[in-house]
Amino acid sequence: MTVLVVGSVAFDTVTTPFGHKEKILGGSATYFAYSCSFFAPVNLVAVVGEDFPPSYRELLEKREINLEGLQVRPGETFHWGGSYKYDMNEAETEFTDLNVFEDFHPDLPPSYRSSEYILLANIDPHLQLEVLEQIENPRLVVGDTMNLWIELKKETVQEVIRKLQILIINDAEARQLTGEVSLKKAAARILKLGPEYVVVKKGEHGALFFSRRETFSAPGLPLETVVDPTGAGDTFAGGFVGYLAKMGEISPSALRQAVIYGSVMASFNVEDFSLDRLKNLQWDDIIRRYQEFKSLTLF
Amino acid sequence: MTVLVVGSVAFDTVTTPFGHKEKILGGSATYFAYSCSFFAPVNLVAVVGEDFPPSYRELLEKREINLEGLQVRPGETFHWGGSYKYDMNEAETEFTDLNVFEDFHPDLPPSYRSSEYILLANIDPHLQLEVLEQIENPRLVVGDTMNLWIELKKETVQEVIRKLQILIINDAEARQLTGEVSLKKAAARILKLGPEYVVVKKGEHGALFFSRRETFSAPGLPLETVVDPTGAGDTFAGGFVGYLAKMGEISPSALRQAVIYGSVMASFNVEDFSLDRLKNLQWDDIIRRYQEFKSLTLF
Repeated sequence: MTVLVVGSVAFDTVTTPFGHKEKILGGSATYFAYSCSFFAPVNLVAVVGEDFPPSYRELLEKREINLEGLQVRPGETFHWGGSYKYDMNEAETEFTDLNVFEDFHPDLPPSYRSSEYILLANIDPHLQLEVLEQIENPRLVVGDTMNLWIELKKETVQEVIRKLQILIINDAEARQLTGEVSLKKAAARILKLGPEYVVVKKGEHGALFFSRRETFSAPGLPLETVVDPTGAGDTFAGGFVGYLAKMGEISPSALRQAVIYGSVMASFNVEDFSLDRLKNLQWDDIIRRYQEFKSLTLF
Repeated sequence: MTVLVVGSVAFDTVTTPFGHKEKILGGSATYFAYSCSFFAPVNLVAVVGEDFPPSYRELLEKREINLEGLQVRPGETFHWGGSYKYDMNEAETEFTDLNVFEDFHPDLPPSYRSSEYILLANIDPHLQLEVLEQIENPRLVVGDTMNLWIELKKETVQEVIRKLQILIINDAEARQLTGEVSLKKAAARILKLGPEYVVVKKGEHGALFFSRRETFSAPGLPLETVVDPTGAGDTFAGGFVGYLAKMGEISPSALRQAVIYGSVMASFNVEDFSLDRLKNLQWDDIIRRYQEFKSLTLF
């Protein structure tokens, strides 16, 4: 089943202890779509400027990501600059040039409107609501957000969350959103807003999955080298939603497996800049790493 | 089989968001011994002052912890004061009154010398070496340490580590000891020093277990309330070594289960001050929580 994603397609200028890269392909919708495409077809909605290079477009088209909903506007593509220190835990934003993203409104091509699986990647919550208004009969709506929107537009973020089946959020954001230190309490509060499930991403420490009845803990795979953590959360979401769309069912066991597939995709993504690791990924690599997660947790 | 522990028995004065407690029973050997006693008999080596109250002594004796090696010296018992902020991640030390601990040298009663399972809890690494010199033929030697000793006496810490089969250490200490950010690389460096296994504790994020051949990840149990994290690491070690001593074998599967039993005991300990939660613990509670860890990780 096809997955619709709305989010950003961007240039990233990134500095990590492993190097400095200018204007590499990034953005929440990019990472999500590329990761998801290993599991299910993707319809992408975003905006780029006239400076967006054909080679980046081809990279996405090669994985059969549908770009009919990728608007091209006069002006420059959204450009984010950031750096990571030694411990790679948190990006320090150096600049955010919104450019064509400033006036972006998602406009779904008619062929997108019947998409059954929807991922609202991290963008302004007002835009996330605009997307939901254009969707006819979704089977699963999953959403992400970030600290900036929780700080500036908390009520709109909550309005979006009420319309989700699954919220994907990181640990700091879950705490910020709910005022609870305990992630268990934070998740319980989020579930009260409406979603059936919440996934709390914890970076190198893995992810927690909560429903009203159960809790599942996915480990972080201990890695020798993290080259660039940018996009790890979106890559996680891509594997997570992609696997659910591939399976066509939203059972407790499919959800747990989906959290692991999300973790698998994120663990690859951080091993290189931009999509460089995912570009060379084979299905066998994914299966092998899934088995690695199995043996990592077995007792 | 009997487990020998050497470490501290102390008064703790602790402030957390849940309250302030003066001179409650604490110390690395105390937490370890109490936790371990649910699995195996314990011989304890430590020192207290003449002010150490009979009620604290009885608490330990009730669990059949052998106190023949607990020296009573003129003067006051070691007293640590610390506080935890909102996020409970790290204690801020307010004072450390070493008192009788200042001149402590472990002196093993003859009946202790044939102990087969040894836990060198967190004390000056010179004292840890003194204990090993008095042990006849240990089957398993496990050691802990802390940032202070790595900073002040790194070479002695390394000398101890060379004599261990298993090092238990927290994530920050593993990074400090090896200069590696990646815990996988840090563990590989520690294993090169001599130990067969290393356990890296990650607080609320669980623990990682490394051998030369495999990695195991134990989750942290998401808790609604953490009242006081003091002694969590020592309680972990108590469950870990206690289970291995109870099973009498050090197989790969026993080691993984031991990491989980350690996590189970630590998860109880943080639910109240001092030994207050462990005091009321039944064997059934331990088994139930072990099953909770199973369902938390199953996929």
